[in-house]
Amino acid sequence: MNLITFTSEDLIAPDTLVLRDRRLQHLLTVNRPEIGSLLKVGELGGMIGQGEIIALSPEQATLRIRLDTPPPPKREMVLVLALPRPKMLKRILQMVVTLGVTELVLINSFRVEKSFWQSPWLSEAAIAEQLRLGLEQAGDTVAPRVTLAPRFKPFVEDDLPALMQGRQGWVAHPAKQANGPQEGSAETRRLSPSTKPTLLAIGPEGGFIAYEIEKLQAAGLICCDLGPRILRVETAVAVALGQLLP
Amino acid sequence: MNLITFTSEDLIAPDTLVLRDRRLQHLLTVNRPEIGSLLKVGELGGMIGQGEIIALSPEQATLRIRLDTPPPPKREMVLVLALPRPKMLKRILQMVVTLGVTELVLINSFRVEKSFWQSPWLSEAAIAEQLRLGLEQAGDTVAPRVTLAPRFKPFVEDDLPALMQGRQGWVAHPAKQANGPQEGSAETRRLSPSTKPTLLAIGPEGGFIAYEIEKLQAAGLICCDLGPRILRVETAVAVALGQLLP
Repeated sequence: MNLITFTSEDLIAPDTLVLRDRRLQHLLTVNRPEIGSLLKVGELGGMIGQGEIIALSPEQATLRIRLDTPPPPKREMVLVLALPRPKMLKRILQMVVTLGVTELVLINSFRVEKSFWQSPWLSEAAIAEQLRLGLEQAGDTVAPRVTLAPRFKPFVEDDLPALMQGRQGWVAHPAKQANGPQEGSAETRRLSPSTKPTLLAIGPEGGFIAYEIEKLQAAGLICCDLGPRILRVETAVAVALGQLLP
Repeated sequence: MNLITFTSEDLIAPDTLVLRDRRLQHLLTVNRPEIGSLLKVGELGGMIGQGEIIALSPEQATLRIRLDTPPPPKREMVLVLALPRPKMLKRILQMVVTLGVTELVLINSFRVEKSFWQSPWLSEAAIAEQLRLGLEQAGDTVAPRVTLAPRFKPFVEDDLPALMQGRQGWVAHPAKQANGPQEGSAETRRLSPSTKPTLLAIGPEGGFIAYEIEKLQAAGLICCDLGPRILRVETAVAVALGQLLP
């Protein structure tokens, strides 16, 4: 927890924050502050600053806070991701927060297992929890918007064109892999640093199928290559977003 | 398993491969091949090609193999990584294989928990197993060399200068984080694509301390920045290696 996040419900006065839940347990077991200790705090969706411990017991911690810094800057970055398996989804939700994604769309794809859409980790509360853990890791207060698109064709035909307005669009898809499947035939390019609004699509384990690549290309996305080895989805997400970082 | 890896011990003739262990179980439960199915195979340290299933039972699979493709190209890339917690180490070992690292040095640092050095996951056999899983994911046959440097000062003074011969060296270290610790005072730069032999150092959760950054800089490493948010170690590894990919 590099940042203690809070909402107005945690305040007992405009400058006084009380922690009782998971955050208190983390403080007591990991940070082990004393009266007078300074900790980094941030209001969800708002400013970041310092909190000074003014009272501390096993039941609650009271902090005097002063917020004076805006959250780290973001560029517009939409990540369109084929729904990963639930165990990986949790890690990816936290990771995309640390990489400054502003919007995450989880979509269906031919190679996404249907059962993944039934996962309890897709509930609004479960997603919000992972995003908050990501904010606490990242030192940020503004989480990406997360939406679900469980049907590929309506998403790509009806929603994607609007998302692509004013953006550069990329889809991570290898041009050719030694002895591997060769679906789609587009030339590919390496991603490069950009401050422009961007949309990046990443397929499931095994990749998008040729039909899906064609539909994504028809919406204006350009194929990009992440190197000669086959990456796990979470590695591909970090590599691609890292390459786009300005 | 995007590639079935084997050694000469798995061959009953120069072109005939027999699988009985974990790889057979994976085949039977995931790939579900039939007689005549073609699968991607590669000899550890050697060539890649195709294997045709010529016999199949619950006890063993027999493949006629033809190796005709070299493993994916690598550039010289040394990753010097503060020893991560054991659970993360497993994932990172697999990940660095998929990112084409040629040598991994796991080093100590002030913020590495001493207990991590006692982990059974640091045994030679345990590391070899994770590297092999990484090769099977990556579609590669050549694993990085992994060495342990449990004492920081001897490593940085005696071993690092030799490792740095003929290489560009980088250390991921934020210049400044809003309200965060500001250790070291070097200007930082963003990593960019490179085909040159490179060495990259990444610290523990919480970062290298100022003394360590000074020692790494004295050995010729230049500070680089991975963006305004605090990344988990495995994300930092993927982002930095991704930015260096040519």
